[in-house]
Order: sequence, then C-alpha cells, then structure tokens
Amino acid sequence: MLRGQMMQRPLLISDIITYAAEVYGTKEIVTSTVDGQRHRYTYRDALARISKLAHALIALGIKPGDRVATLAWNTYRHFEIYYAVSGIGAVCHTINPRLPVQQIDFIIKHAEDALLLFDEDLAGLIGTLDLAGPHAPRLVCLAGEERLPQAGLGPRAIAYEALLAGHPDGFAWPQFDENTASGLCYTSGTTGAPKGALYSHRSSVFHAMTTIVGRPSEFASDGRILPIVPMFHVNAWSLPYSAPLAGQSLIMPGPKLDGDSLFRLMDEEGVVSTWGVPTVLQGLLNTMARMKRKPNGLAEVVVGGSAASGQLIERFEDDFGVVVRHAWGMTEMSPVGSSGFLGREADHLDRSSRTKLQLSQGKRLFGVEMNIIDDDGAALPKDGAHAGELVVRGNSVIAGYFRNADASAAAFDAAGWFRTGDRARITDDGRLTIVDRVKDLIKSGGEWISSADLEEAAMRFPGVVACAAIAVPDDKWGERPALVVRMEPGVALDVEALRALMARTLAKWQLPDRIIIREALPMTATGKISKKDLRTEIVGGA
Amino acid sequence: MLRGQMMQRPLLISDIITYAAEVYGTKEIVTSTVDGQRHRYTYRDALARISKLAHALIALGIKPGDRVATLAWNTYRHFEIYYAVSGIGAVCHTINPRLPVQQIDFIIKHAEDALLLFDEDLAGLIGTLDLAGPHAPRLVCLAGEERLPQAGLGPRAIAYEALLAGHPDGFAWPQFDENTASGLCYTSGTTGAPKGALYSHRSSVFHAMTTIVGRPSEFASDGRILPIVPMFHVNAWSLPYSAPLAGQSLIMPGPKLDGDSLFRLMDEEGVVSTWGVPTVLQGLLNTMARMKRKPNGLAEVVVGGSAASGQLIERFEDDFGVVVRHAWGMTEMSPVGSSGFLGREADHLDRSSRTKLQLSQGKRLFGVEMNIIDDDGAALPKDGAHAGELVVRGNSVIAGYFRNADASAAAFDAAGWFRTGDRARITDDGRLTIVDRVKDLIKSGGEWISSADLEEAAMRFPGVVACAAIAVPDDKWGERPALVVRMEPGVALDVEALRALMARTLAKWQLPDRIIIREALPMTATGKISKKDLRTEIVGGA
Repeated sequence: MLRGQMMQRPLLISDIITYAAEVYGTKEIVTSTVDGQRHRYTYRDALARISKLAHALIALGIKPGDRVATLAWNTYRHFEIYYAVSGIGAVCHTINPRLPVQQIDFIIKHAEDALLLFDEDLAGLIGTLDLAGPHAPRLVCLAGEERLPQAGLGPRAIAYEALLAGHPDGFAWPQFDENTASGLCYTSGTTGAPKGALYSHRSSVFHAMTTIVGRPSEFASDGRILPIVPMFHVNAWSLPYSAPLAGQSLIMPGPKLDGDSLFRLMDEEGVVSTWGVPTVLQGLLNTMARMKRKPNGLAEVVVGGSAASGQLIERFEDDFGVVVRHAWGMTEMSPVGSSGFLGREADHLDRSSRTKLQLSQGKRLFGVEMNIIDDDGAALPKDGAHAGELVVRGNSVIAGYFRNADASAAAFDAAGWFRTGDRARITDDGRLTIVDRVKDLIKSGGEWISSADLEEAAMRFPGVVACAAIAVPDDKWGERPALVVRMEPGVALDVEALRALMARTLAKWQLPDRIIIREALPMTATGKISKKDLRTEIVGGA
Repeated sequence: MLRGQMMQRPLLISDIITYAAEVYGTKEIVTSTVDGQRHRYTYRDALARISKLAHALIALGIKPGDRVATLAWNTYRHFEIYYAVSGIGAVCHTINPRLPVQQIDFIIKHAEDALLLFDEDLAGLIGTLDLAGPHAPRLVCLAGEERLPQAGLGPRAIAYEALLAGHPDGFAWPQFDENTASGLCYTSGTTGAPKGALYSHRSSVFHAMTTIVGRPSEFASDGRILPIVPMFHVNAWSLPYSAPLAGQSLIMPGPKLDGDSLFRLMDEEGVVSTWGVPTVLQGLLNTMARMKRKPNGLAEVVVGGSAASGQLIERFEDDFGVVVRHAWGMTEMSPVGSSGFLGREADHLDRSSRTKLQLSQGKRLFGVEMNIIDDDGAALPKDGAHAGELVVRGNSVIAGYFRNADASAAAFDAAGWFRTGDRARITDDGRLTIVDRVKDLIKSGGEWISSADLEEAAMRFPGVVACAAIAVPDDKWGERPALVVRMEPGVALDVEALRALMARTLAKWQLPDRIIIREALPMTATGKISKKDLRTEIVGGA
C-alpha cells in the first residue's frame, strides 16, 4: 500500500461550535426556559459562554475522561454543557429524568459521574436520589444563584451562573485523539440493567456529517429546527451537532412538550422543521386540528423513536401540507441509521402507495451498513421478501457497552456486526422495513405475526388514540395476539367494526383474539408504550 | 483520556459508489461522448462496469499503490476509472491533456505510471509522448475495439471495452487503511516543475462530505449537476464523489466545452446546477445572451478556479435568474476551501452590495482552517482590514508533495500550515477575500496594488472580454501596473474612458501606466490567463 500525503487532523466536537460561531455567528439558539421565559442568543454568544464553562469545569477539577452528568431539558444551557464537557476531553453523560429513580441511581454509580448538572424543576428528583458517599457527584443547578433557595436547594448545589461568572470568554480548545470518548448515554433497558453507549469525537462528528450528507434537503434552507426529541435521549438525534454544523438555528422547547406549548413556540419563532417521537407529535397534531392551521412556517416533521402510523403521516401531509419523514435508529447507533426517502419517482404516486413507502424506515445513511441474518447468523437476501434480524456496522455504531462485558459479548454476531434486535426486510434498492422488534413478534401456529402491522391497522380506526399488540400464551397455537386500545375520551369502541377494518389489510388468523380497552397505557421513559409492562399486567409474570 | 467504544470503519472511496448504486440506484450518468453520441446509464449500471474494470485491472497486474494515469475528458468511462482504480487500492492519476507535452512526459515518468488510459481523440497527443523504455506505461484507449484503427492506434493500445469484456459484474471491494493513497494530481506549475498532490481515501471521502455539509442547498434538490470543470483538474472539485454521495445525477459534457455545446446539453438534460471556471462560463453566457434565454431548468452556477468578475455574476443573476456561487480552492486542498455564502441577511441588499459580497471567496468549509500571516510568519488579525498570506490546515490539505522533498519543505509555515501563495483578508465572521496571488501583486512606491482589483474594474468596461494586470519594473517606483486587454472583435478601445471608469473605484496611483491591447491572451492549461507568459512577452525574461 502507498500512503497518501495528506494532513491528519482529528475530528473534534469543539471544531463544530468554533466553526458555527465564526461562519454562522448570527444564527440563533432560542429557548423556552424552565422558568417560563424566552431566552435567545447567537452561536457566537454560545461559544463565549461555552468557553467560560470550560474554564469553570477545569477549575472544579474535571479532568479528561471524567464523566459529567446532566438531568436536563432542551435548553441553551444544556447545549453549552454538551460542548464544554466534550471540548475539554471529558464525557458528557446525559440521563433521562423520566427513568425510575433506582435506574438513575444505578446509572450515576455505574458511570461514576464526577459532576451532575440538573434543571431547577428537577430539584425534587435530585432529593430522592442516593447521592451520599465520598464518590457522589458534585451538584450544579442550571439557574442563577437567586433561584437556588426557591428550588429548595441549600449549600449542596452550585448555581450554574455563579459557576461561569468571572471566567474568560475565550478558550484554547485542546487537540487530542479523535477516538477519545465524548458522550455517554444509557439505553432505557426494557430488560436488564441500563447499558451505556460511549460515543467518541470521531463517531459524533462523522455521524452529524452523515445526517446532513444523507438528507441535504433537511438542512438546505436558512432554517430553524425545533428538536422535540430530548437532548437526554441519544443526543437529540444529533441536532445539537448537526444544526450548528449546517448553519440552522435551534429552537429549544424546554420542559413543556404538550401540543399547545409546542404550537405556540413554533408559531412565534417560525420553526421550519421539527423532530420528535410519534406520541408527542400526535399531541401537536391535535392542537393543529383544534386551531385549524399549522404553526406559521412549519414545512417538515421528522418522526422516529418508534414507528409512525399512516394516520399520523396522512394528517400532517394532507390536512396541513407538512411533509413527514420517517427515520429509524438506536441509542447504539448515535442514533440515526436510516431516513425516510421519497425520490422524484414518488411524485405521481397515489396516497396509499405513498403512505406505504413512508411507513418504511427509508434508506440507510452513508457510513451505516445493514444486513439481515437468519437464526443461524447466515446472511439473507435483500429482496424485499426475506425477513431476518437486522445487523449493522459503521463508524457511528458501538463496539461494546461501557463497563459491561456480558452485554457486550451478546450484542454482536459472529462477523462483528451489531445485532439490533429488530426483525426487518430490505429491498434490493436499499429500502428498510422494520417488521417488528424481535421480542415483540407473535408466533402463532409456527407463523410470525407482526405486532407493528396490527397496530398500524388499528390506528386507522376512528377514535383510537393509541394501541399495542402483544403475545398471549395459547395452548393450541403457542401464542395468539391480543390488542390493547386507548380510545378518545367519551368514545365507545365498536369491537366488531374495528376487527372488520383490520381484516381489510390482515389475514384472518392474524387478527387479535382479544381486544382490551384501557384508559391509560404504560409508557417507557423515552415515550414509547411499554409492552413489557402491558404483558406483565395482562399475561402476568415478568 | 478515555477511549470511546465505537466501531472503527475506514473511510473508503468504494463505499461511495456501492452506496449510490444501492440507495440512488436509478440516478443517471449522462455523457456527451467523444464520438458525438449521448450515452446514459444509472449508478447501478456504473457499479457493474466498475466491478468489471476492477477485475480487469488486477488481471493486467495492477497492484495496490500502482499509479494508473488518465488523459481523458468528463465521461462515464473516466468515472468508472476513478472508482475501480482507487477501489482496488491503486492510485488514480489524472493528467491534464492541455499541458505542454514535455510536462506530460515529466509527470508520467515522475509518477512511474503503470498504465495510461486515454480518450480516442487524444491518440495524436499519445503519439507525441515519450513512451519508450521498459518502464513506460501500458496503453488503454477509452473506446470499443472497432475504433482503434480509426484512431491510428495499432497493437500498442488495448481497447477499454475489450478489457472489460468477460469479467464479472460484481466485485468484493477490499478493506484497507483509510490513509491509503487514492489519487494523484500534479499542479500545472506556473513556476518550476509540476508538483504532485497525493490524496488519500480518508481525505477524499471527508472532502466530498464537507462540500455537501458546507452547502447542503447545492445538493438538496433531486438534482442534475453538470461538471464543466474537468475530471483531470483536481477531481472536478470532488463532484464525481459528492454527486453520487448526495444522490445527484451527473451530466458529463465530454470534450466539447464551447457555449453552444454546453447550452444544448444542459437544455436537453434539464441540468439544474453547473460548475466551472469563469472563462468557460463566459462562453455559456454569450450563448445564453444570443438565445435570449437560459437552458431549461438551470438554477445555479458554481464558479471557481480563478476569481469571477462582477459582470459575470450580475449577468447570470439579473439577466437570467441563475444564482451564482463563488468558490475558492487549490489542487493542494482537494480542492475546495471556501464557498460563496449569502445568508438571509443578503436578501434586502442592493445589487452593488450583493455583488461585493459575492466577489469575496465566501466562507471556509467545515474541516478547513484558515489564518493569514505576515512576512515574518506571525498571525494577523481577522478584522477584514489586515491582509497577509493565507495559510490553511485540514484533512483535505496536503502534508507534502509526492516525491519532492524540496517543494515539500518550502510549502509550509513554521506551525505546519500550508502556504497558499494567496494574499487575503478575513473578516471576524469568516468571510475570505483573496486580494491577489502573492506573486501577482504589484509593489509600487512601497504600497501594494492588487492586480485582481484592476482587472475587476476593467472588466466592467463595455467591450472588454478579458484582461490581466501585471507588474512592470520602474526605476522610480520599483514596479508599476500595466493592463493588457482583449476587446470584442471589431470594438475599439477608448483608453481614457477606460481609465476614467477605473478611477471610480481605484486611487489614481493604482491606475495602470500602460494599457496594452492584444487580440489573444496566453492561457494556462487550466483555463486561466497566463500572467507568467504575459510578463515574459511584455517585460522580457522569465
């Protein structure tokens, strides 16, 4: 081999914010803050405060490799923490405040966090955590000093604004190996203890670039993007990195993610594109239906986290002229793996054909490789017909879990590809369709039934707000599907009519034996319906 | 430091074409071929033939690290060579057929090319080259076997189509270190012997990604791009990599780059965006003026290679509604360093303010760092006022010249940044303005006069088609400017009127002492006016 004669510069996260502050210096970060205000400043302003925070972290004794945890909403201060912590070579460890307290305790201890920064409205949660002992993290409340007594925080916590005060607004960002750890995020873990994905500077910068390279149109306008997806959930799908990299302003919603709050913020700030999970977008859609209009300027919704329903896609597009793109990813993939994709070919499709394409998870991003394998680990053809477990490989995919040899050993196939736990089909032109989570599939009489297919069909029935299909043990068939449905308040369910609608797209043996109505469905910390809890409730056992 | 736990996958050029063939499989490469036909196929078809070529190269004995040279226009076959050669770990060495024969001879010997692939219309050039001796490259003519006798080529050359025939249309692309050399391009060398830039897979993939990340809007539409800039000239500004990566169809003009041929090809193929040097775009503009319309669908022109004039920008935009973006780069930078940039802020600017911004070289791409230094190598402030030599650093910048220790030693400053030889100013918001090539500046009475400023002013004079300002030795002032002008055929020049127009934007002492009319100006092989030859002609000496 002959080696090229090119410079070697590390891909570092600090280069993103110094670039944005220089080249897109006047683009904004606008925040609906925890204390109900509207805060706005530019990327240039942000870099000045990120520099102050970098000095402050070093003054607190934070060293390269230390984990610095956050329990925080999408705000400008959380953005500052992302860049200052990674920029000095420490690890930005985002924690989901909606996790059960014992899981948060586990995660903080497992990561050995040196510092924990939290939003003031989470002071109550902080009070319930086990933060005793010599190794407990020091606490910083993301507020001015005057807010600490109100939050019931005495001398235990430092005020963020006091921490920054007096430090210089310039910082010489250190240069180091691009494989240095930059971020840490634990999967919410529907089974077993939470497992940590430890991102590197190389993976994070590369991943941010691939999300732009893969879908330039999403970053093409002189735009304003609102990440509903939280910064505590896999880096808000990279938007805190990709938006400044592509010169897009960021509109941060803070803690209020109900439809009315989102609508008002988008409307007032001229948000062009918003990214979030289906449940929260459904809330926005309900507000839009009530207001009989879309927020001023909204042109695009990117939906991911769990599968979007055809109903959601069609209401956004047909009722309001808002284009929907369906993305798919995992915490272990930084997270984006594939993204909705309709070429010019789709322009002339009728609604149902178009919806069908949009219900697929789109096509892989450059740098993410995908295969499907059978139970023996053998590769299956990408012919749109064969379904198998989806395995992935790429620079933005984990090579193991942080301090967890057992989980790491189980996570990869014999060729070293990451096992997603999703059952999928891939066409020969690269279109990915997630059939179901492997563990959510229902095996009836030797045949697989996709819970996702049942749910997609049921969501089209008027009055159905949410639903989940689960496997119920059956003496004759092994397993049979049951469907749990939540209806709009005051609307009664005509079970036979629902069954008839579902029979239009499903075989008779695929239809649920039982249809159960619930006023509320158990949710996971990341906003998905918890099928594990539903199974426990309906079937019993764990 | 803590190391992230992420997979390590090499950035390889073969991944671009396998990605495009899968995800954008139906996008086209359309070629106006050397023999006057219109050839069209898809990225999927291209990959099949690239696979055949990879097999054929190996069968010919080409090994990793070997240099494989091309003397070829922008065609689908040249595209195939790019990917097959780099894909097997060999080095794709593009040579500019417009260089003097002795320079081509020098380059082929210096690179020790193992193979030379050339377009059939260049058979005459091949006949004049010194290709004797045991180390001379084997010859492949980019045509079917039936064309060889016509081209006057006997058994010396293999026909490209015969070479591919019979090989399988699938290939298992090898995985290797991303720092492996992938491409080689010699600078045309206005002084001294040509110097080679040896690109790597990492630098090429990263550079292609940065051109998309830096300007997503240029790749946002489901578009069709025509690279006028040749594939023998710094990888046609990366378009053979970036266009497939972003799912854009490529329209290849072959050897005919006159305005009428380009207009017709663009018009018939619905080209949305075209990229080229000012002189060739001027030809297109002249055809558009004669036709009184733009080619159907043309929305954008990217101009680089040498500075665009305000006249060119304004005619494209105001007369035809075609947006102009001004880019800047160098062979040593892969090549794109900065790109035209107008934010929303520019929407309300008047024409002359807008042109002024567009005459700047825009802002740096992510991954390219820029500084200006004084004669002692000390950094100058980026305040828009100080001018100094521009130095650059980044993954797409060379770390040395191929097999040329002397040139390598002279190319970098004390901090290891590459010295561009351009004199520039940078504003605090990152806007780059190239004042002049350092060697083209005119030093008069201790003050610098920019030849580029003189040319920009003179180009606004009716009837001036091209011009160049050069330094002429002067006993009193050291140097004084002379302006050489080419007029439209049949148009006489009113020298005093030209001087009066130039005096509107220039100080009196900056105005040229001599204004010289020439019917033709000497051009370099890359389509720029050769000031070196002009100086020899007018001043004498070398």
